[in-house]
Parts: sequence; structure tokens; C-alpha cells
Amino acid sequence: MHLLDHLLRRLIRSGSLAVTWPDGRRSLYQGSTPGGRHSAVRLKSRAAAWRLMLNPELAAGETYMDGDLVIEEGDIRQLLDLILYNMRWERGNPARRLVGGKRHWLTRLREANGRARARRNVAHHYDLSDRLYQLFLDADRQYSCAYFLDTANDLDTAQEDKKAHIAAKLLLQPGQRVLDIGCGWGGMALYLNRVADVDVLGITLSDEQLAVCRKRAAEAGVADRVRFEKRDYRELTGTFDRIVSVGMFEHVGRPNYPSYFETIAERLDPAGVALVHTIGRADGPGETDPWTRKYIFPGGYCPALSEIMPVVEQTGLWATDIEILRLHYAHTLERWYDRVQASQREIEALYDARFFRMWSFYLASAITAFRHGGHCNFQTQLPPRRDTVPLTRRYMERTEDRYRAEPQWLEAAE
Amino acid sequence: MHLLDHLLRRLIRSGSLAVTWPDGRRSLYQGSTPGGRHSAVRLKSRAAAWRLMLNPELAAGETYMDGDLVIEEGDIRQLLDLILYNMRWERGNPARRLVGGKRHWLTRLREANGRARARRNVAHHYDLSDRLYQLFLDADRQYSCAYFLDTANDLDTAQEDKKAHIAAKLLLQPGQRVLDIGCGWGGMALYLNRVADVDVLGITLSDEQLAVCRKRAAEAGVADRVRFEKRDYRELTGTFDRIVSVGMFEHVGRPNYPSYFETIAERLDPAGVALVHTIGRADGPGETDPWTRKYIFPGGYCPALSEIMPVVEQTGLWATDIEILRLHYAHTLERWYDRVQASQREIEALYDARFFRMWSFYLASAITAFRHGGHCNFQTQLPPRRDTVPLTRRYMERTEDRYRAEPQWLEAAE
Repeated sequence: MHLLDHLLRRLIRSGSLAVTWPDGRRSLYQGSTPGGRHSAVRLKSRAAAWRLMLNPELAAGETYMDGDLVIEEGDIRQLLDLILYNMRWERGNPARRLVGGKRHWLTRLREANGRARARRNVAHHYDLSDRLYQLFLDADRQYSCAYFLDTANDLDTAQEDKKAHIAAKLLLQPGQRVLDIGCGWGGMALYLNRVADVDVLGITLSDEQLAVCRKRAAEAGVADRVRFEKRDYRELTGTFDRIVSVGMFEHVGRPNYPSYFETIAERLDPAGVALVHTIGRADGPGETDPWTRKYIFPGGYCPALSEIMPVVEQTGLWATDIEILRLHYAHTLERWYDRVQASQREIEALYDARFFRMWSFYLASAITAFRHGGHCNFQTQLPPRRDTVPLTRRYMERTEDRYRAEPQWLEAAE
Repeated sequence: MHLLDHLLRRLIRSGSLAVTWPDGRRSLYQGSTPGGRHSAVRLKSRAAAWRLMLNPELAAGETYMDGDLVIEEGDIRQLLDLILYNMRWERGNPARRLVGGKRHWLTRLREANGRARARRNVAHHYDLSDRLYQLFLDADRQYSCAYFLDTANDLDTAQEDKKAHIAAKLLLQPGQRVLDIGCGWGGMALYLNRVADVDVLGITLSDEQLAVCRKRAAEAGVADRVRFEKRDYRELTGTFDRIVSVGMFEHVGRPNYPSYFETIAERLDPAGVALVHTIGRADGPGETDPWTRKYIFPGGYCPALSEIMPVVEQTGLWATDIEILRLHYAHTLERWYDRVQASQREIEALYDARFFRMWSFYLASAITAFRHGGHCNFQTQLPPRRDTVPLTRRYMERTEDRYRAEPQWLEAAE
């Protein structure tokens, strides 16, 4: 216990944490700066305490899932918020140098997502029960960072606004051929066809997603214009006027960055525009934490711009705009977390209590990564030519507002 | 001649170039794709032809300055436009792989701009006659990329709009302390005080610029609120609410990138915002060409984002927005070039015909770098905290338009 005690004493500089040890003793860790954050936890076994000491990044999630780390005041979200606030990355936090991403040559191997492994990784996460995603995502099932014009906006509004925001950056013209790499449950593809009268091919590696996508296109009566296929991005042929890829680059893995951007460059018409939306890191390169990699996203990696830009530059594509979205994903994840909590009984029935705790931990730790860690989202606009997009960015807001005013989406979102 | 002939035969794939060799023979190089670009040149000596063959990057400018390379049809701008269009970097140009930036370990030494060398480099360029800059720059003497809301806008309008564009990204509040690193002739510092009621400290290493800055502040009756000093950025103390640095990072040199961003991080209030505007390269890292380095900007280097971002990430500053301005500088430089041509007689009187040709070559080659090369401008917004700037970028255009509507600038620009 001694080492864990020492670690917590050093760590908690703001707020307070009460710990009940396996032998019944209680410790209170209190920061010198007064802060509202407070949590109380109980460790049920000496084994759990040892695991936390030896490998806190992996064991925090595992002991919580296993029920050996019990939250006695607050919830997992508040506990992680307290811990990660004290470890926050930003300049000005005296402890920020303690954190830092560890790097290991082996880790790149874990991201060598060939086609077979890419399929397995996708199945691990996206072939989970359809019902689970229905329970916590918005009506259109957007499983990526929403866009909050106002933090009071509800999730459905913010996800619609995200689609409008991205669509505006694509500079769409009626009849254009659009490729959606990593199309999820088809929401973006259907949206682009609806607001901009374009033809879309969406590709996914998930059987569950593909079935939902095709059903939705058929129901909307646009199956001839919005097609979906189970296809690896490296297996495409032909060219497209526009390429959009939202929340997919996180699964690509560093060894495949060149082939990802080469694919975009090769599949894009010279007068085309691509828009890549991905989770990223403002704090520089760093591994995905071992718990997330093991239980949530095998093969995943969130890039820093210092890792994306060398590849883009060599591809000969222009990066004509880079928007760095901060906190939008925290707001999104907080809404997902709340929905998961509200559906506890149904999720436990669907899987079990351990799965519910796992899913809660996943979303709670993701919130802290965006609130206190270096996580953010990058939207990078990538045309092959410098003069394809207008000289200034003013068209973005105008086009976005035009799409937002479209009446169609209100019906479609139901 | 043979090698040069061979090179031109390979290079000219679009447009045509007529060359009269020293012995009177004429060659016509014509691309297979029809194009309007055409130039005719005459080489006056075999020595010039040899120099062009052995070191074209340096010799093109030198033989032109020396009068050994004579333009017989068109002007130097059209000649370079023809050549560089055929070498253009963008994806889709089959010849683009021929170009590529050469790298050499020695080159970094040339950018090791310590304080003494930084002063010499600045004096080399910015202590040129005040009258020269007056002849080709706008009324406010902005010696950096303007911002064209419309390409028909005149230079003065575009430079005023540039200041408004940058000011908007700084999120200024009345009474804030602003630092302007590399303040030029003081235009930005005076502008920020005027539109946003802030106190500004502008620093420069140029004696000529410092004198003009102080005179202007005194004449505007704001010498108590807009101060100027001759100071190296590494010699500053204290903190500021806002830091702006426009067209100065190009002179920093790669070895000093960490100390530049560390200086910004250390001088910036934790709730502050910095905005760095710099020429950059979308085509990846590459040396400044030897002619420009020798005659125009000793010690200069234009960064790729892949060179800026690793440093920013390690500094613990957020990059909350990265705007990539393309072609704005081509439009700016074209206006400067035209003004230089219109003032040929006066510039030749001020210096000599060789200097005039040197200055024409400098601006003409810069135009092609932005029209056909990988050059662009980066505006990077850098607060220490993620939540200092609003969640969306919508404030930028609104604030910019408010500043643009300010009536003061109309008087001030005169």
C-alpha cells in the first residue's frame, strides 16, 4: 500500500480523494488548492491494490470492472475527473511533466493493421449489439465528436450540426461522387445525399453496420444513390470528387498512415476535396493507454499533428485548413455517459454488470482525456490543388447555416 | 550548352521558351500541352550558360542581376512563372518528383541565428532605405502577406483586412498588454491599440524600423500606450495577455524553434492567446534557395507544419486553430512587383540597375513560389489553455467585420 499511498500524496494537489484500504483503514488525500472535486473509493483486496501499484493504467479499469475498486462517493466519471485533473497536460500545471506518453518500439507492431487484423479490430467494437449503440448514441447514430454551436444544445442537434460543419468543408456540388471511408451506420452518407444531392459510396468493415446502412438507404428510397459496401480502404478502385472520413483514422495505426493518405490522393479527382476528421493529441505523440487498447479499441492510435503532417506533406496533398476542436468531444461523451447510466438495467441485461462497468469506465476515461488530457479532434481539409477551395474560410459558416436550415433533416432524424 | 539544352527539353511541358545562345543560335522549347505561357531570353556569354548549368538555383538570379541573362520577350516574372509552373509541386504534375528540397547538414548552421547574427541578418534587409519600402509597400507599410476578401481588392484594403483578421484571432479586451514580436514599421501595434484599446510593446532589431515606429506612435499621440524597443525576443521579461508575431518566424531558423515557442509560452499569461503568422511550406521541409539566402534573407528558413508542430506540442501550448493561407501572398507580391516596376527609375537612382534587377527577381521568384511551389502562410493560434478561445471559430468573422467597420483606420491609413 505504501507506494500507492506515496503516489496519491504526490498526485492530489487539487480536490480530495478518500480511500478505504482492504484492512479497513482510511486515508484522505487533499490538495493544497481548494477545489470542489471529491471522490471516495474502497479497495476490496490487497491484490487489487498491488495491481494498481504495478500497472495503474491497466489496473484502474480492470479493478473497477471486476468490482474490486468500488466507488463509494460520486461515480467513476467523477473519480477519473479528479485524478486526471491533477495530471492535466496543459502548460501551467506543475505536475504535467510527470505524465508524458511512454513509447515502446513494440507498440507500433500492435498497430500494423493489415486487412485481416483491421477486420477483427472493427468486429471487436462495432459488431457489438446494435441495441447498445441505439441506447446511448443520437437518433442518427453518429459515433464521433459532435459540434456544439452552444453547449446547451442537445446531442441530436449537435450531431446534425457536426454533419453540416463537415459537409460545408467539402464544397459539394449536385451529382458529385462522394466516398465515405468508415461510414459507420450510414448517417453521414445519407445526410450528404439529402442536403447536397450527391451520390455516395460508404465503406465499412463491420457486418452489423453494413446491414443497418443498407436498410436505412432502402427505407429512405435512395439505395440507388447511396450505396454501401464491406470494403477495406486499400481495396478501392476508381476516383471520387469528394472523400470524407470521420472517426476512422483512429483505427488506421501509424504504420499505415502513408497508405491511408496515398489512398485518398489516388482516389481523389485532381479537382477534388477530402476531409479527414479524427481524434488527435495536442500534447504530442503518445500511446493509447493499455486498458483502452485491450478492452475497447485494439489496434487504435490517436495521432498528433506532428505525426500526420509529415505524411500529408509527402503525399502532395494540400492541407488547406486544420480545425482543432477542443472540448466538443467532452460534451459529446458526457451526453453518451449519461445515457449509458440511464440505461444501466437494459445494458446489464444485454450483457452483464461487468460489461456495464467497462463501458462506463471507457466513456468516463475518454471524457477526462478531452477535459484534462491532450486529446482533441482534427478536421483537416485536403485538396490536391491549392485553388480548389475559396481564398478565405468565410464560405464554411454560410454553407453550414444553409444546410442547417434544410427542413429535410428534421424528418430524417426521427 | 548541351546539358542546359537537355534540361530545358525535359522541363518545358507546358508553354514555350525561346533561348538565344551566346553563339547566336536559337532554340525553342515547347511543351506538349498547349499553354499561354511564353518567354524569350538571351544568354550573353558562355560563362553565364555554364553557371546556369552548374548551379541553376543560384545562377538564374545572378546572371539576371549581372545582365548576362536578358529577357527579350516578357519580363522576369513571366520567365520564372513559365519555369516554375513546369516544376510545380502539387500532386498531379508528373514532373513534381524532380523538384524536391535538398537537405544538407551544413544548412542548419546557417540558421543558428544567435543574437548578434540575428541583428546582422535583420540589418541586411530591413535597414535598406526607408524610401524603397515606401515605394512598393502599402500606406501602412505591412511587409507580410495581405488578406484578400476579394482578389479585386487593392493592396491597402487587403492589408487592413489582414490586420483585422489577425486581431480577431487574438480575442482582445480593452486594457490588455500585447507584445508584438518583430513589429516591422509599427503598423500592427498601432492598429491593435486603435481598434481594441490595448497597450502594445513592439520589438524589432532594425534601427531604421525602430525610428519609424516611434515617430508614428508620437504622431498618433499614443506613445504612452504603444511603445517600441530594439530587443531580441530572447531578452524579454514579464508577461503579456496577448502575443502577436507576423512575418518574423521566417527569420528564426530551425535551431531556435524551441526557444522561440518557449519564449512565447513563458511570456504569455496562462489565460493568454498568441498568434503566429509565418510563411510556410505545404510541400514539406526544404531549404531556402541559395540565391534568396545570399542576396535577400540570410539566415532565413520557411517551416513546414511538420517542423513547427513537434516543437509546439512539446511546449505545452495548444494550437487551437491553424489557417493555411494560399495564394494570398501571390496576390500581395504581384502588387508589390507592379509597384517596383512602376518605380524603376527612382529605385535605380536610389541604388543602381543591378539592385533594381535583384529586387525584381526577388519578388518575381517569390510570386512563383506561392503560385506553383509549396509556399503558403500559416496563422497558428496558441493559447496555453484549451478553453480560452470559444468553442467554435464563428467569432473570428464577426470580430473581423467589426474591426473592418471601424472608421478610424480610414484616416489613419493616410
